[in-house]
Amino acid sequence: LKMQFMRIGWSGLKETKKEGKVTDKQQKNGIIYLVGSGPGHPGLITKLGYDLLNTSDAVVYDDLIPIELVVALPESIKRYYVGKRAGHHSKPQNETNDLLCDLAGKGLTVVRLKGGDPMVFGRVAEEAAYLKEKGIPHQIIPGITSASAAAADAGFSLTDRRNASWVMLATGREAKSASAPVPWEDVGKLDGGTIVVYMGVKDMERIVKSLLEGGMSPDKPIAVIQNASTGIHQTVRAPLSKIVARCQDANVVAPALIFIG
Amino acid sequence: LKMQFMRIGWSGLKETKKEGKVTDKQQKNGIIYLVGSGPGHPGLITKLGYDLLNTSDAVVYDDLIPIELVVALPESIKRYYVGKRAGHHSKPQNETNDLLCDLAGKGLTVVRLKGGDPMVFGRVAEEAAYLKEKGIPHQIIPGITSASAAAADAGFSLTDRRNASWVMLATGREAKSASAPVPWEDVGKLDGGTIVVYMGVKDMERIVKSLLEGGMSPDKPIAVIQNASTGIHQTVRAPLSKIVARCQDANVVAPALIFIG
Repeated sequence: LKMQFMRIGWSGLKETKKEGKVTDKQQKNGIIYLVGSGPGHPGLITKLGYDLLNTSDAVVYDDLIPIELVVALPESIKRYYVGKRAGHHSKPQNETNDLLCDLAGKGLTVVRLKGGDPMVFGRVAEEAAYLKEKGIPHQIIPGITSASAAAADAGFSLTDRRNASWVMLATGREAKSASAPVPWEDVGKLDGGTIVVYMGVKDMERIVKSLLEGGMSPDKPIAVIQNASTGIHQTVRAPLSKIVARCQDANVVAPALIFIG
Repeated sequence: LKMQFMRIGWSGLKETKKEGKVTDKQQKNGIIYLVGSGPGHPGLITKLGYDLLNTSDAVVYDDLIPIELVVALPESIKRYYVGKRAGHHSKPQNETNDLLCDLAGKGLTVVRLKGGDPMVFGRVAEEAAYLKEKGIPHQIIPGITSASAAAADAGFSLTDRRNASWVMLATGREAKSASAPVPWEDVGKLDGGTIVVYMGVKDMERIVKSLLEGGMSPDKPIAVIQNASTGIHQTVRAPLSKIVARCQDANVVAPALIFIG
C-alpha cells in the first residue's frame, strides 16, 4: 500500500493541506479518510480503502456497510457506530462531525466508512465541507455504487452501445429541504438509456405515475433488485404499468434499486 | 479472499453455471473474471479484483488500466495485451473473444482486466454474452468509474441533496451503429442534477451546441478533468458557452471527462 500510495500520490490530499491552511498544531491532528465500502460484498471495497481501514487507528461506520469489514479488524482499532437508517436517525450529523473532529484532534488516522460510493447519494460533500472548514486533512476514497454491482449480478450492463448510451442514477426520496427534486416527467421523455432509482421503493407509485405522465411507455421493462452483491439478491421484473403491484405482491422492501429500461 | 468469496458467494457465477448448461467437459474449462480496474490509481481496483488478479493463471488487459497492476504480478501469470484506443483497433473484438475461449479451454483461471467500471461504457455485456453462448463460466467484478474518482479528486460530489438529486453518465462518442444516440437537447432541459460526459472531448462543440439549443443556460458551470485519480489530473473550468474555446487553449486531449452542473 504505502508504495502505491506514495508513488502515485493522491492529489486531493495535497490540495486539502494547501487550501485548508493547515497550521502546525493541526498537522499533528491526524487525518480522516472518507471511504466508500461498496455495495455489500466485503470484497467490493477498493484495495486502497481496505488497506487504509486495516492500518487505521479508528473507524467510524454507518449501517449500510459490509459489517464483515469491521468485525475482521484488529482489536487495536477503535470502532464507532454512527448509523442512521431512513427515518431512524440514530445519531445526528453534527454528533458525527464532532466525533471525527475529536478523533482527528487526538492525532489519529481515521476511516469514516460509508456505504456504497460516497460520491453518489452519500452526503460526503457535507462531511468534507465541515472537515475543510475545520482545517482537518481529509481524503475521499470512492466506492462501487450499488447500481453497478446489481447490474453485474443480474448480468446486464448499465450502458450498451447497442441500446443504452447513458445511465442516470436518481434518488427516489424527496428530501424535505431539496431545492432540486428529480424532474420525473422530463426524465420520462428521455430515450436510449438506463435509469436507476435509489431509495425509490417507498415512493414508487408517485415516481411511476410521473414517468407515465411524461410519456414513458407503460411497457417499459423494469427490474427491482434487493440486496445487490450479497448473494441473496432478489429481482422482481415487470412492465412499468405493473411494477408497483408486482413489488407489493413480492413484499419488496428497502433498500432496493429500481432499474428502468 | 477465499474465505470472503466462498462464504458470501457471488450469485452471478452460480447462475452462469445453472443457466449456461455447463457440461462436464466445460466445467474443467476454467473461468473468466471480467474485472474493472478502476479509473487509473492502482489502489482503486476492488479488493476482490486485486486478489483474483494476483491468483489468476492469465491476464488479458486493455490500454486504459493502471499498468502497475500488471507489471507487479508474479512472473508465472501470463499476460495478453488486447488494447484498442479509439480509432486504433489493435485487436478486433472477435480475436479477444477467441483468446478468452482458448485460455478457458486450457482450464485456466483468467482475469479479463478492463479500464474503469466495465458496466459503464465498457462493452462488458458483449463479452459476457459471447462467453455465455459458449458456455464458459464467467463473472463480472465491477469497478470504480472515472466520474466518481474525478469528482473525489476535485472535491465535489456527483449528487448533493442540496442541489443535485441525480447524476447522468453519458457517452460523447456517437457509435456509427448506435440505435440510441444521447438525446442532448432533451438532456439540456433537465434541472437539478450533474451530467458527466465520457469520451466527449473530440465532439464537445457538437454536444455543447445541442445542450444550448435544448435550453441549458450558457452560464452553466463546466469542469473538464483529464487523468482523474492519477495525481497528475488537470482541470479546466468555464461556463458552458466558453468551455470549448478554453479547452482548445489548454490543449485538453482525451481521455477526459466533462462535468456539467
